[in-house]
Amino acid sequence: MEKLQIIPLGGLGEVGKNMIVFEYGRNILIVDVGMMFPESYMLGVDHIIPDYDYLRSKRERIRGVVITHGHMDHIGALPYFLREFGDVPLYATKLTRGLIEVNLSSSLRKQTPLHTIAPGDEIHLGPFTVEPYHAAHSIPDAIGLGITTPVGLAVHTGDFKLDHTPVDGWPTDIAKLAEFGQRGVLVLLSDSTNADHPGTTPSEASLTDALEGVFRQAKGRIIVATFASLISRLQQVIDVTQQFGRKVAVTGSSMVANVKMAQRLGYLEIPEGLLLSLNEINRLPPQQVVILATGSQGEPRSIMGRLATGRHPSLRLTRGDTVVLSSHTIPGNEEMVHAVINRLFQRGAHVVYHPVVPVHVSGHASQEEQKSLLNIVQPRFFVPIHGELRHLHHHAHLAEQVGIPHSDIAVVENGYVLRFTQDSMEIGERIPGGYVFVDGVLMGESVDESIVGERTSLAASGVCSVVFRYDQDQGHLVGDPVLQSRGFANFEKVQDIWQGAQDEVRRALRDVQPGTAPLKAERAVRKRLSDYFYEQARSRPNLLVTAISEG
Amino acid sequence: MEKLQIIPLGGLGEVGKNMIVFEYGRNILIVDVGMMFPESYMLGVDHIIPDYDYLRSKRERIRGVVITHGHMDHIGALPYFLREFGDVPLYATKLTRGLIEVNLSSSLRKQTPLHTIAPGDEIHLGPFTVEPYHAAHSIPDAIGLGITTPVGLAVHTGDFKLDHTPVDGWPTDIAKLAEFGQRGVLVLLSDSTNADHPGTTPSEASLTDALEGVFRQAKGRIIVATFASLISRLQQVIDVTQQFGRKVAVTGSSMVANVKMAQRLGYLEIPEGLLLSLNEINRLPPQQVVILATGSQGEPRSIMGRLATGRHPSLRLTRGDTVVLSSHTIPGNEEMVHAVINRLFQRGAHVVYHPVVPVHVSGHASQEEQKSLLNIVQPRFFVPIHGELRHLHHHAHLAEQVGIPHSDIAVVENGYVLRFTQDSMEIGERIPGGYVFVDGVLMGESVDESIVGERTSLAASGVCSVVFRYDQDQGHLVGDPVLQSRGFANFEKVQDIWQGAQDEVRRALRDVQPGTAPLKAERAVRKRLSDYFYEQARSRPNLLVTAISEG
Repeated sequence: MEKLQIIPLGGLGEVGKNMIVFEYGRNILIVDVGMMFPESYMLGVDHIIPDYDYLRSKRERIRGVVITHGHMDHIGALPYFLREFGDVPLYATKLTRGLIEVNLSSSLRKQTPLHTIAPGDEIHLGPFTVEPYHAAHSIPDAIGLGITTPVGLAVHTGDFKLDHTPVDGWPTDIAKLAEFGQRGVLVLLSDSTNADHPGTTPSEASLTDALEGVFRQAKGRIIVATFASLISRLQQVIDVTQQFGRKVAVTGSSMVANVKMAQRLGYLEIPEGLLLSLNEINRLPPQQVVILATGSQGEPRSIMGRLATGRHPSLRLTRGDTVVLSSHTIPGNEEMVHAVINRLFQRGAHVVYHPVVPVHVSGHASQEEQKSLLNIVQPRFFVPIHGELRHLHHHAHLAEQVGIPHSDIAVVENGYVLRFTQDSMEIGERIPGGYVFVDGVLMGESVDESIVGERTSLAASGVCSVVFRYDQDQGHLVGDPVLQSRGFANFEKVQDIWQGAQDEVRRALRDVQPGTAPLKAERAVRKRLSDYFYEQARSRPNLLVTAISEG
Repeated sequence: MEKLQIIPLGGLGEVGKNMIVFEYGRNILIVDVGMMFPESYMLGVDHIIPDYDYLRSKRERIRGVVITHGHMDHIGALPYFLREFGDVPLYATKLTRGLIEVNLSSSLRKQTPLHTIAPGDEIHLGPFTVEPYHAAHSIPDAIGLGITTPVGLAVHTGDFKLDHTPVDGWPTDIAKLAEFGQRGVLVLLSDSTNADHPGTTPSEASLTDALEGVFRQAKGRIIVATFASLISRLQQVIDVTQQFGRKVAVTGSSMVANVKMAQRLGYLEIPEGLLLSLNEINRLPPQQVVILATGSQGEPRSIMGRLATGRHPSLRLTRGDTVVLSSHTIPGNEEMVHAVINRLFQRGAHVVYHPVVPVHVSGHASQEEQKSLLNIVQPRFFVPIHGELRHLHHHAHLAEQVGIPHSDIAVVENGYVLRFTQDSMEIGERIPGGYVFVDGVLMGESVDESIVGERTSLAASGVCSVVFRYDQDQGHLVGDPVLQSRGFANFEKVQDIWQGAQDEVRRALRDVQPGTAPLKAERAVRKRLSDYFYEQARSRPNLLVTAISEG
């Protein structure tokens, strides 16, 4: 009998977060097509997408793509994916579809067969029957998936928490999960993001108390920064704004677009007259003003970044303003976020931020919720997903605590092939490839690890170009060498090193035999100069050496 | 009457952490001479030291330098400072002096008049009388200072916590602080590091419980990573090692040096036979082995970094090993630390890290301790130090809560001059200068912000050198242009862009008038190519253009 293959794709970072492939015979089902954010050492990389190489030769086998929710790490690679894979049918809930459409070019939007699905539906995709169920997360309309396959039922939780009082009043569908459990679940793939957090994650409702506290004390304007896609958070701020008799303006293009879309689709309720433009709200007294903005990660060109440095065209911080950062800091952004907080304080604002004030809660289940889920679903096999290796190990440990044998748990990195029969799981080979850098319009092999490696070297010690005219017959330098540098050292300040470098080029070419090829002469200069700079400055700048042949 | 000036120097990061100048008339007293660690955007910078420019012209006024404790952010710039300021007398407690001596070259050690001081001493330095008192911190032999000046008594806490059960059994000297309070304190300068942490910081003693828990469960070797200077932490690991009948080896050159020195000076008690070499311990069964190592920040070339990637010459992780990261993660290092933890898990180790397991406590006072201190010292004026602006603001807020008027609190950044009389405080001008980058042997103006800016640009989009022969009379290109690049794109993969770039150089020079100077021709090529690359790749690599004049 054919085996079911489950492959988390991506090669980097959180396992299965961005894309998971379910494969049975000549049939492929894809869950999520998200992007990754580059680590800070990946210089010049805008973002990272999964490597689709495994899917390229199997294009016609793809029966459909199901998206669990509308965060960028689950939908952000769709523009790249759809450009390559064309008219693959796409399944998403109403709000998720709205967020996808905001992010697609109009031509891709036209080309792609987009299907709106809802919890309770049954979607038949080749040999797979997909049953979406509602999941509470930090965005409305999130789903988990029951996927009936020829060898058994797989449950994929998506991102979730067991929040009993979510903003939209719709908790994770535990009854459906219990029903899956009663049917018998072959394998559970479950969100591990917070597997190192004991206890339970606080409800989104707890934020309302914190926000009310901030609003009660604020004497001037209130500026709330959060992610543009945290639609529930926006609703909470809007509700508290209304409650305290203030008005709200939204700024930041992604947030404006999302608010418009979510309101149109009925996922944001904004009372008539509450939402003003930035121009309108600037005419109100400060104690009536709330501004919702992007930039909670401290990005220099975001609204918060520009407010912190006084470079926003129409908003200026003043003493008495309260700034709320209602978000968590993505690892790697700590320094930027702290710098922005410091600058906001410097401009006289009162800054309220997590965890000093509980103005953010996680959208992911903690340990007690993860154990609950394992007990409800009672899977035969367990695959922790959505986390770095350390989270997967913690989650695996929890699964053992609730009675799943060590040998029935697969902790794997992206790219490993898991194979299932009705009563077995095996960890197969790792497929080649991994992830793809995107830098502007360049991507893939054009900007790969070797290019990022060169950037790392340039960042550490700069570059120096050396040009000289060279007479091969004589093996002689003609005229003076021309040196230029960037990012190495201020040569006005170390003129002796700079002067010495020119002498060093002369010396290197004095040692060259008549008839030596220009390439060899370049190599001699490179070697000599590199050693010279190291000796003088304990640094080896990148050397771009060009010999111009004479005579 | 002359005013007392207090100036926190450094220009960057935590205020007054690295150096504070006390100045009265023609007399200067310096407290601490530390280094800063670069933010991750400061590419290629090894570390940062305060700018001493303010002190340069006042060299002969310096009566002495007092060091509060032996952490690098308080002693790390001494080698640079002493090289420039020569034989300034230096005052430090015994262990602090030991740590300073480990970090000085032998010539600097000989040249510098080093004085050992102890709590209870009175040191007369010009018009200043310095009374060190014991402070509990994450390193033994730390002190705070009472500084009697002609206008009144200043108290400088150094780094401290009000730990009642520190490892060395010697809590912060509250009695002395109370005595200062009774004498009347003009100004308190107090550690703000944890001013956004409610409650009190757990005692170092609480760590022993956590370590015992780890040792009880560990079946194989135990590898503990921490900072080389956390002498108290080393003592705790040694104590627990003895208690569980294991042996310990120390690895990492800085930790080996510190252990040797601290043991010699009596700050580390290691029972006879407990300490083995790495070679000796490798012959013991795993359940008898403890290894103390550096690299808790995930630095690739540290012991932990090399263990994580399997590149340590004599240590190799095996299933069953337990790795304990007993340290906090310095902001900016999160990604590196997480990557190391993931790789350690991957190699089969069980990894124990803060805050999942409480194997680290902070060495700094939290809010309740900070308020206690304010109440005990009862200063007329308050200057929060040792923190970023956000911490200083939080600390100022606490001071207001205990009754210090807003107008008697000075929240300032590094470089501002605070002036005191017997009953007034005024915030003066900001002195020019700030901080100095150190990159290998280059520093100061040789590697300044402009160079780091160039590195940022190189890191983002790489570099391309363009060399062409140019006939000025004709305004013509001669032969073919030569292009080389680094860190821009893989030109084997985008040959059409690369080929097009050469054509673009030809085209730019075709538009040039006969007689155009080479510099102008270079500029025309630079402009044309920059636009071309942006159009093709949405990226503007740095262009180093060289025209070689012909004929």
